[in-house]
Order: sequence, then C-alpha cells, then structure tokens
Amino acid sequence: MNHLIIKNGNVYTDGSFKKADIIIKDGIIKEITSDTGNLEDFEVFDVNEQNIVPGFIDVHTHGAVNVDVNGATAEDLDKISYFFALQGTTSWLCSILTDTKEQTLWCIDQYNKHKNQECNGAKLMGIHLEGPFLAPEYKGAMPEHLLIEPDMELIKEYQTAANGDVKYITVSPEVEGIPDCIDDLKELGIVVAIGHSGADYDIAMKSINNGATSATHTFNAMKLMHQHFPAIAGAVLESDIYCEAICDGRHLHPGIVRLLIKTKGIDKVVAVTDSIMATGLPDGNYKLGVNDVVVVDGDAKLANGGARAGSTLTTINALKNLMEFTKRPLEEVIVLLTKNPATMLGLYDKIGSISVGKYADLVVLNKDNDVIATFVQGKRIMK
Amino acid sequence: MNHLIIKNGNVYTDGSFKKADIIIKDGIIKEITSDTGNLEDFEVFDVNEQNIVPGFIDVHTHGAVNVDVNGATAEDLDKISYFFALQGTTSWLCSILTDTKEQTLWCIDQYNKHKNQECNGAKLMGIHLEGPFLAPEYKGAMPEHLLIEPDMELIKEYQTAANGDVKYITVSPEVEGIPDCIDDLKELGIVVAIGHSGADYDIAMKSINNGATSATHTFNAMKLMHQHFPAIAGAVLESDIYCEAICDGRHLHPGIVRLLIKTKGIDKVVAVTDSIMATGLPDGNYKLGVNDVVVVDGDAKLANGGARAGSTLTTINALKNLMEFTKRPLEEVIVLLTKNPATMLGLYDKIGSISVGKYADLVVLNKDNDVIATFVQGKRIMK
Repeated sequence: MNHLIIKNGNVYTDGSFKKADIIIKDGIIKEITSDTGNLEDFEVFDVNEQNIVPGFIDVHTHGAVNVDVNGATAEDLDKISYFFALQGTTSWLCSILTDTKEQTLWCIDQYNKHKNQECNGAKLMGIHLEGPFLAPEYKGAMPEHLLIEPDMELIKEYQTAANGDVKYITVSPEVEGIPDCIDDLKELGIVVAIGHSGADYDIAMKSINNGATSATHTFNAMKLMHQHFPAIAGAVLESDIYCEAICDGRHLHPGIVRLLIKTKGIDKVVAVTDSIMATGLPDGNYKLGVNDVVVVDGDAKLANGGARAGSTLTTINALKNLMEFTKRPLEEVIVLLTKNPATMLGLYDKIGSISVGKYADLVVLNKDNDVIATFVQGKRIMK
Repeated sequence: MNHLIIKNGNVYTDGSFKKADIIIKDGIIKEITSDTGNLEDFEVFDVNEQNIVPGFIDVHTHGAVNVDVNGATAEDLDKISYFFALQGTTSWLCSILTDTKEQTLWCIDQYNKHKNQECNGAKLMGIHLEGPFLAPEYKGAMPEHLLIEPDMELIKEYQTAANGDVKYITVSPEVEGIPDCIDDLKELGIVVAIGHSGADYDIAMKSINNGATSATHTFNAMKLMHQHFPAIAGAVLESDIYCEAICDGRHLHPGIVRLLIKTKGIDKVVAVTDSIMATGLPDGNYKLGVNDVVVVDGDAKLANGGARAGSTLTTINALKNLMEFTKRPLEEVIVLLTKNPATMLGLYDKIGSISVGKYADLVVLNKDNDVIATFVQGKRIMK
C-alpha cells in the first residue's frame, strides 16, 4: 500500500526545481527520476508539473485549532498535527510553556501516548521546553513563579519520562548557572536555544561558546542591541548560531527579517510559527499555558497586559511572507522552513530535503504557493 | 627632486603583501617592481622589508593638537595636517560642525588659503559639513539654534566659496525636505551621509534610495534599532551604503564593530576618527565648535551634559584597534582606512591603494604597526 509514485513534479532538489518523478516505498524516498519505467503495485499521484518542496518543519509552536500544547491530550495533539499537515508542516516539536512539574510530566505523558498511536497528520518528532530556566524580566507569557535556576535532575526526569524525546530547550543565559550547564543539556541530547533574555553580551557569548545552538524568536522577548552594550541580540547576530524568526509581519518588521538574513546568512535563519491555540480559528479569547490571551485581527496578546503572546501564523503563510518580505524566490527562502530547522536539530539525515533515503515528507504547491497536497512519510494527509 | 625609489618594501597591493620597490616621479607611483634596475637621479629610501600600506584617509575629523576645525586658520590646518601625517593619514576632510553662516564661510576661506599654500603634512582634500540640516533630538555637539531645514541656496553659496571642495555632508533624513534634496546635493558634487538622526525606517530608506551614500558615525547619535521599528539604524544595516565607524573602543563596543563588518561586508565600513582638538594632547578642557569639552582618560564629553563629543582617536590607533577587535590581519582590515573611504568619495582612481598612476600616498609600518614613515604625494613628512 505504501508504494507511491508522485509523477510529473517540479521537484526541489539541490537548491532548484527540476522535472522529476518521486518513487516512495514504506515512507522513504527511493528514487528521484525522470523515467520511472513500468512499476507495478504502485499508487500514482500526478501533480501536473506543480512544485514539490520538502515538508515544513516547525520547531516552536504552542498549538492550533483550539488546542494549547500545555493542556493537550494525545488526541488533541492529533488535531494539531492534522491541521499542521494541511498547512504544509510535516514535522514539528510541541513547545511546552513553563509549567508546574506535574503538568509538564502530564504533557510528556500525553506526548508518549500520541507517539504510540497512529496519527493522521504531521509527525510530532519531539518536545521543546520553553523554560523553566528563564529570566523573569523577559518572561513573556511564562508564569513568573515557576521560573527557576537550572535543575539538571528535573531535566533528566523529563528526558527519562519522554524516552529521550526532549529535543530542544530555551534558556536565558543570565540565569545563574546557565552558561555552565549547556554541556550537560547537550549530553542529554537536547539542542539548546537562548532567549527570553536580557543577558549582556559577554554572558550571552559565553553561552554560545559553551554550545548554545540557536536563539529563540530572535529579537522578541530579548534585550535590544546598543552600540555600547550589544547584549544578547548583538551576540546572537555576531555569532554563527541559528536564529528563530517569527515571520508574521508583526513580531518582526519585514526590514528586520531582511537584515537577519543578510547578517546571519540564509542558512542560519529558522522560520518558526510560535503559534497558539487560536491559529486556524477566528479572533476571540484563548489560553496560552496559564495565561488568558485575546486575539484581535489575528494578533495574540496577553489579556492582562497587552504583551504579544505567540502568533496565529501558519508555516505556509510564513513562507509566503518570507517571499514577500525578501522578494526572493521560493527556491531561496524555502530553506528557512526545511533544511535549516532540520540541520539545527541534527536531523538533516532524515528530513529537511527531498533526497533518496530520507522520509517522503513532501508538499505540493500551486503557482500561488497554496498547499495542494501534503505527504507525511509517504502518506497523503487528506483534507 | 621628487624622484624617489622606496626600496625593499613589503608592499600591499591587490589585497596582499609582496616584496617590491616603488618608483615615484612627481608624486605619482610610476612602477611597482621587483627589479628597479639602475636609475640615476633618484633618491632612495630603503625600508628593510617593512610593510608599506596605502596612506590612511580620514573623512570625518574636527581637529587635533589644540586646533578645532571650526576655529582653524590656514596655518592651524597645517598643524593638523602635519600631526595627521605622522599618524599615517595622507588625505583628510575637515569636518565643519554646524556653525553660523559667517563662521562657516570664514572656515571655507581658511580652507582656501591653506589649499593655496605649501603644506608639510597630509593632504586636506576637501570639506565635510556636519550639518546644518540635522535633527535637534540627535544633535550631539551641534548648537541647536543653528539647525535648519534644507536651504540649497546656502549650500550653493558654500560650494561656490569652496570652489567645489565641499565633498561630503551629513544630513538627518527626518528633517523636512531632506529625502528630496539629496539629488540636488549630489548635483553639487557632494557625497551625502545620513546621521545625527532618529529617522524611522521608511524615511531613512527613502533617503538611501534617493542616493545617500553613507552613514555618519554609525550607531552613534542614531536611534536604536527595534524589531518593530528598525529606524535609521536598521535601514543603514540592511542597505548597501557605507558605514562610518569610530573604532576607539568607546563609541562602538568591539562586538558591534565585528557585527558591522559581518553585516555590511568589509568593503562597506569606513573607519573615521571623528577626532577633536584634544587629539595628540593630554586630558583637559577643550572646545568642539561652540561647545566646551572635557577630556578624561582620553574620552571627550560635552562639559554641560556628559554626551560624548568626538574622540581622541588617531587613524593608526583605529587600525590597531580594528586588528585587535576583529582578530583579522592587517591586509584585511586596512581597507577600512584606505580603499573604502576613497571609493565612498569617488576618489579611488587617485588614492586608496598602491597602484601605478595613483598618488604616492604611502605609510611604512614596523612589525608592531607603528608608523615609521609617511609619504604624501611622494614627499616624506619628517618627524
């Protein structure tokens, strides 16, 4: 059954599009060829020369379609995965906002249950912990009383509960002890991002030199750069770490997105949605972790203060925005949603490009870059 | 008399050093050769395999050795030129701080007298007007009551008085009418820099698109970049204009210098001193235009408020700082003091590199990058 030929594609490989068919067996890309020959027992999907790009990877999101990750059951996670797949996302990390230990372990338990079930949607490939080792002054939507100093025993407990699937964590460099525990976090198989931070330049750079790999929603919930005090923003820009960017046109001015790409290079910017439960739904009142959130005109803000609280962005809209903001073609900006997050997480051997041996995570786009079809490990997710 | 061979040099050409002799006639480089043969009637200067680099070009300075450009007589300008030459500067623009029309015309008159006299020092190649079309909110050391909206008749009067030697002007994009008068300024042969400004992104970018060529002491006296409001700083970084940088370690954190070079590219950053009359002298009380300035530990600040007011930096120290800040070799950072300012001003056909047909503006450096000898149009300026 899981033998599929996607025919007549304009396939994105090695940085450009070329006409090809894709042969898929058991969810894996077996061949990218201009001549599939006569293959029996293969289902055929003809895309009529539309573009086929790698499935999008979202490493930072709190939910969609009325589901908040911090309160999501295994079935709720299915709902997000299904919605995401229709937006072109084929792999994602669920971002657990700083919460109580009990609730976090409950989230991990639901994650495990979800993982052991068949899912009709994007692959939930792991957990992103946004906290709890964060600076109160830059807490954003984090509950301040739950922010703590580094506790490696706690992280080990989470990681054991998740069977090693805590893949990513956001920490603030200025929290006492953070720069020196980055190695320990990496030892546990966790990629470390710095953010929610007013760290000065030196402590931020120390964290980077100690192995931090990326910056969480760059510039947002982050101290501004000043010519005398470059701070974390300056360290993030100067260094070679990856930079998450929320490309909804609200979190970052389009000029800032262009500048980020200019400064970091197009291979070091990772488009994330940081989406919340309101994504895919009308304006109204929602939750983000323990917070009440009000969404007006698609803009999500904390009900109690007006600070921005995540987004209602989807990956496909991030892609369209990137093309509009940068005036660059699809083949250049697509890496921000595919290769870059895959490389950042060390998963580029499995996902992030259309290559023989990798998962058949594929998105078919029409000329307007609307999602026509999404394949997750070779399985088409139907509307 | 002005026939000279500089022998046994380690000569900087085409981005690297090579062993060569330089043959100079009438102030012009005639040949760069490994074999000068037998030339009679040539003075010979043997540099014993020390480095020879192009003379430094300083496009933004208010003085040195107790001379403030705004009050400098023709002879006073000689004093600055002589001091500058000993620091490796071979060409400079005198920066006239915003002043009354009468005083500005007096400065131009002194400039003309200086130009018509023999000078034993760096070549004063033109005038930089820092104002008067500047924003009061970012005035720095400018007298606020003299800041005005664009007045092209005034600039024409200055340019006529200077016989076309007003080469460079700093304007604030947010001053009413500035973006639309940049073309007119360029028509007068003036390169336009934007700075002393809190301009928003759009108006700054409009000025850039209308032909502004550089940014005055980038980040200093300039609105900070914010992710929602990139402002002039964001526009300057995103665009391809040149960026002045005061590399004294005070005006810009070393990390900001590295970031500027990373973002703009090493060919778009122009090292300037923005030096004042206190340069080359001990700490104490000085003037900058109409302002009283106090220099403590080499740091110049306005006496009435503490705002930084120029520097006590020299070009050779800027070079050393650049090497220290960036850990890049001499052959990479030297362009910030040579090729880049020459290109920015459209003078790279005459100065900015050691090339046949260009002025023999040369600096000999020892292994510690101290200035051993300076030649201005082939003439050695003796200590």
